[in-house]
Amino acid sequence: MERIKPRTLSGFMELLPAQQAKLEQFLSVLRRDYSLYGFTPLDTPVIESAEVLLAKGGGETEKQIYRFTKGDSDLALRFDLTVPLAKYVALNYGSLSFPFRRFQIGKVYRGERAQRGRFREFYQADIDIIGDGKLDIANEAEIPSIIYRTFTDLGLSRFVIRVNNRKILNGFYALLGLSEQSGDIMRSVDKLDKIGPEKVGAILREELGLRPEAAEEILRFIAIRGSNAEVLAALEAYRGKNALFDAGLEELKAVTAFLPEFGVPEKNFAVDLTIARGLDYYTGTVYETTLTDHPEIGSVCSGGRYDNLAEYYTDKPLPGVGISIGVTRLFYVLQEQGMLSDTLVTAPADALVIPMTDDLRFAVSTATALRNAGVRTQIYTEKKKFKAKMSYADRLGFPFAVLIGEDEIAQGMAALKDMQTGEQRLLRPEDCARAVAEAMAVRRGGNVIKE
Amino acid sequence: MERIKPRTLSGFMELLPAQQAKLEQFLSVLRRDYSLYGFTPLDTPVIESAEVLLAKGGGETEKQIYRFTKGDSDLALRFDLTVPLAKYVALNYGSLSFPFRRFQIGKVYRGERAQRGRFREFYQADIDIIGDGKLDIANEAEIPSIIYRTFTDLGLSRFVIRVNNRKILNGFYALLGLSEQSGDIMRSVDKLDKIGPEKVGAILREELGLRPEAAEEILRFIAIRGSNAEVLAALEAYRGKNALFDAGLEELKAVTAFLPEFGVPEKNFAVDLTIARGLDYYTGTVYETTLTDHPEIGSVCSGGRYDNLAEYYTDKPLPGVGISIGVTRLFYVLQEQGMLSDTLVTAPADALVIPMTDDLRFAVSTATALRNAGVRTQIYTEKKKFKAKMSYADRLGFPFAVLIGEDEIAQGMAALKDMQTGEQRLLRPEDCARAVAEAMAVRRGGNVIKE
Repeated sequence: MERIKPRTLSGFMELLPAQQAKLEQFLSVLRRDYSLYGFTPLDTPVIESAEVLLAKGGGETEKQIYRFTKGDSDLALRFDLTVPLAKYVALNYGSLSFPFRRFQIGKVYRGERAQRGRFREFYQADIDIIGDGKLDIANEAEIPSIIYRTFTDLGLSRFVIRVNNRKILNGFYALLGLSEQSGDIMRSVDKLDKIGPEKVGAILREELGLRPEAAEEILRFIAIRGSNAEVLAALEAYRGKNALFDAGLEELKAVTAFLPEFGVPEKNFAVDLTIARGLDYYTGTVYETTLTDHPEIGSVCSGGRYDNLAEYYTDKPLPGVGISIGVTRLFYVLQEQGMLSDTLVTAPADALVIPMTDDLRFAVSTATALRNAGVRTQIYTEKKKFKAKMSYADRLGFPFAVLIGEDEIAQGMAALKDMQTGEQRLLRPEDCARAVAEAMAVRRGGNVIKE
Repeated sequence: MERIKPRTLSGFMELLPAQQAKLEQFLSVLRRDYSLYGFTPLDTPVIESAEVLLAKGGGETEKQIYRFTKGDSDLALRFDLTVPLAKYVALNYGSLSFPFRRFQIGKVYRGERAQRGRFREFYQADIDIIGDGKLDIANEAEIPSIIYRTFTDLGLSRFVIRVNNRKILNGFYALLGLSEQSGDIMRSVDKLDKIGPEKVGAILREELGLRPEAAEEILRFIAIRGSNAEVLAALEAYRGKNALFDAGLEELKAVTAFLPEFGVPEKNFAVDLTIARGLDYYTGTVYETTLTDHPEIGSVCSGGRYDNLAEYYTDKPLPGVGISIGVTRLFYVLQEQGMLSDTLVTAPADALVIPMTDDLRFAVSTATALRNAGVRTQIYTEKKKFKAKMSYADRLGFPFAVLIGEDEIAQGMAALKDMQTGEQRLLRPEDCARAVAEAMAVRRGGNVIKE
């Protein structure tokens, strides 16, 4: 037979079992924490009508899209989870209750140029809160709490949720008479961390043609640093000159005011006036999250407030706020940095039942007893030498082996071996189940990420 | 602005939140039970190289495939989870430990003609056990136990796991000198339930041109019914005439012998000689699962033993056994039949905190206390009348409301309202959390399916 060389497309992540087990635990934390905040799970098709998906049209994204025809249909694969959400809310407006809070964890597709760490298929994990006409600022205040809990539960403590408000920025640039150039200015200011204030100043003056005083004023503004209280106090100096700025300042104060009640420590939160988020549709609070020891990774969780989720599909104003984690890239980077825990249980089960006789019946009923007690259990049924069976248990990292030989069968007992300590005890099957369940309740508590 | 009419492609399932919550619970049961048997989760790309995906080539499937080019690449969307598994095992052979047990729950794509209940994008939930060169019959014996537990945990009791063995069938047809026609014969016999023995006999004689005695013999064979012991006893009458038949009978006896130890009641299991499974690659035990009260649905979980998982990619013999549930179609049919539970909790959270004052701080810290205790909690922060807030809680089916007014704030207490009974209690936030957690541990116990 002619054989085809098996391969996986470049830019598509496909993990070996132990790494996949870590990714699953990573995703479980997201699912659990998003649910803890009252977001309902949503699932939308990977394929949409191209007309619907590209309603907004244009831009860099369109080139990257996987678009094709099937029969008469012009189809495309989703490139984010926001456009499908907009479609869903516009389509099901009458059946939803607002505020509508949904999370979606799903694969999206972008035909980027293949390079290390860039993926063409990747998971996004999004939450959004959509209001019907209005949406209270308290929702924007809740987002940092969700980010804080999620990253803490993943195992991180050294991260900062950076928050800004587009109204403050737009108001400030209006004050300087630079509203029309504000997009270009924000993109330049965004490079501050990478290239420093002097080079940003040069870009503002030379490339964007700003007056030196205006460039100075901008550099002074984005240099405002300190505790939340200090930054807010410094911003007060600009109050009363522009209504939009003042509204943004009020929103920013509201967002920071709730932090203690939402359980977000000050050390994990910073008002950062350099944050703008490139996308046009953000209109209020914007968020970025950075790992303190790994600024080179960039933002690992970003989002913001927008006024019109679905303007391409409906005339109903649907304001919202949302954040997104680019799971595949983040997981890849954590792996590259050696930041994924190596103490996590990644075995396919907690116990491997190893029969040492030809008659498997007692081994099978022992496995059934373990499973009935909720213990993840595999039976090793291949006819191999004992050493080969134990080496299988070792290689896959089973926490426990349950050995069943003639003596055990005669006594109706099983030899429970802790693969970590080597300790071995003779127990009745139900007691085996209890012992493994108790031990695993502790061992499964570990975090996915180590710092 | 010109607006695009939002729509979802036909043949693509997109659920409203309450239905989606049910599907999520359905999928959770599958994930939990597959894990309980020591299957490791796997995830493979939705897009593969067309050359790799279509290595086997030809057939009805190829016409249905979503195939397209991107740049120079000839790509296709996966149409099942078996071909990607074969590719994965062949590609990662050196890194895997055998037997390799994996489950995968993922979307697959087939451009079928759109009609009610037919989906172009649908979830399959597969498990497979792959051996390296050999795989013990005990693995085939374990499969009914997995099917039994899964469907029981979904809420069903009236279902039958039907088992047969291809060696028995192939041996039997060899006995009759009909090996070459066995494929056609099996496809005719498969219609027995629908059209009855007389019409099957007519097809065998008239369409396939069998001698009347041979047709008689086949009808007699597939009419063998009764308890497992009775069917096995009847099959003993054919023993000693064909080696393949005898091997199949031994395997079938081994599979049924372990049922008590695997905890599968006799009433949920039947040896059924009419089961063949169309696919060529099954070589031993085959499985189908039918709902006793809904034979019209057909098999809801099928699979079998095969000798060569990955022969198109590698010369390594990789025998295996696996089953698959077509989740999307099954879920759709259960919904149509009114068989999805309507007592499941489908709200986005267990508790809705409803502030009745402008100052949200105590409401927020109460929500944080609930979340810290693991209670799924939403805060309703919109400025609406009390009635509108309660109606939101009602519509979404929140089990509990936590009311926070001026009196509650003054006392540092929250009014916990059980939305089912109407009962209301004044409790400290931590006691609220405990009360909700305890109540939900009971209420969340319900099954997804009702019979």
